[in-house]
Amino acid sequence: MLDTLNQKISFILELEKLKGVLRKTRPIGLDRRENSAEHSWHVTLTALVLLEDAPAELDALKVLKMLLVHDVVEIDAGDVFVYDTQGRADVADAEEAAAQRIFGLLPDPLGADLLALWREFEAAESAEALFAKAMDRVNPVLQNCTADTSSWEEMGIGQDRVLAVNERIGAQVPDLWVTLKTKIEAVFANL
Amino acid sequence: MLDTLNQKISFILELEKLKGVLRKTRPIGLDRRENSAEHSWHVTLTALVLLEDAPAELDALKVLKMLLVHDVVEIDAGDVFVYDTQGRADVADAEEAAAQRIFGLLPDPLGADLLALWREFEAAESAEALFAKAMDRVNPVLQNCTADTSSWEEMGIGQDRVLAVNERIGAQVPDLWVTLKTKIEAVFANL
Repeated sequence: MLDTLNQKISFILELEKLKGVLRKTRPIGLDRRENSAEHSWHVTLTALVLLEDAPAELDALKVLKMLLVHDVVEIDAGDVFVYDTQGRADVADAEEAAAQRIFGLLPDPLGADLLALWREFEAAESAEALFAKAMDRVNPVLQNCTADTSSWEEMGIGQDRVLAVNERIGAQVPDLWVTLKTKIEAVFANL
Repeated sequence: MLDTLNQKISFILELEKLKGVLRKTRPIGLDRRENSAEHSWHVTLTALVLLEDAPAELDALKVLKMLLVHDVVEIDAGDVFVYDTQGRADVADAEEAAAQRIFGLLPDPLGADLLALWREFEAAESAEALFAKAMDRVNPVLQNCTADTSSWEEMGIGQDRVLAVNERIGAQVPDLWVTLKTKIEAVFANL
């Protein structure tokens, strides 16, 4: 019992490091980069309020758990911009190794369960993973459409790429995508 | 449908502000204050890995939802140090008003459900609320016991107060509290 608790404490302490992993986006109204820990909270709560709009009845607990852990691999592998297709492919092995190391800090079956959930999210095939992956896109779109400066503009990402990368939202919550698409087009019309 | 989605977008955007609410503690290894959004993520994931150690079978989804929303009232009412008993009492009305305003951005029954969950957490009576409240204490204790500087020392909080405020952990996960108590005593022995 004490051994498994000490393993859990090691995992909990390891999670601190995600607060130091910086993303390309900025929290709205703040003059700093967003970190992957606060992003994970925001995305998980976003999923919670949109769950009832999913195209099918989902396992809510599974969706929340997936989103809570979806970025912990960045502790080892760093955050790679979603529009960097080559970078995303290059980092896949490092992320798998990170997942094995970090979830491996936990006792089993808990560690194995979270590792399986993380892999399910990455595979983007199950209904829960497809919904969670779509939710992971909502906040960055809203941030880029609301803030004074957009990471799209900073990074030289064009409207076609933005629409292509984020259209997975439309397969999950079509009406939300209609609204977000209008916002995206307004951002590029004003550049 | 579009109306309720726009209400949800307003709520999601409002949540950005929690990333700017600073706590007294620091993330381990980082030279800045922790914000309440990243804290909320960390606490929710801490609860997830300790759920199996709870004294009774809990509604896991309820615990995670409670912890995801437990601090959103700080957007209006600010973060009040847990050791500031008078301050905590003074802010109660402002937090209730904040909860009504912020969850009121959402369509019902979703908004009413989250408001009820937040109130249940604050009341600290149900099994899920007692566990969630205990989990909310685990990370600050670990941060203060692991980092070079402790917010306890900075704020002049003595060992007796630290033990009294955090002993609610012991009612939920007794063995974890034994370990944390040893760490707390070591911190004060080294002052």
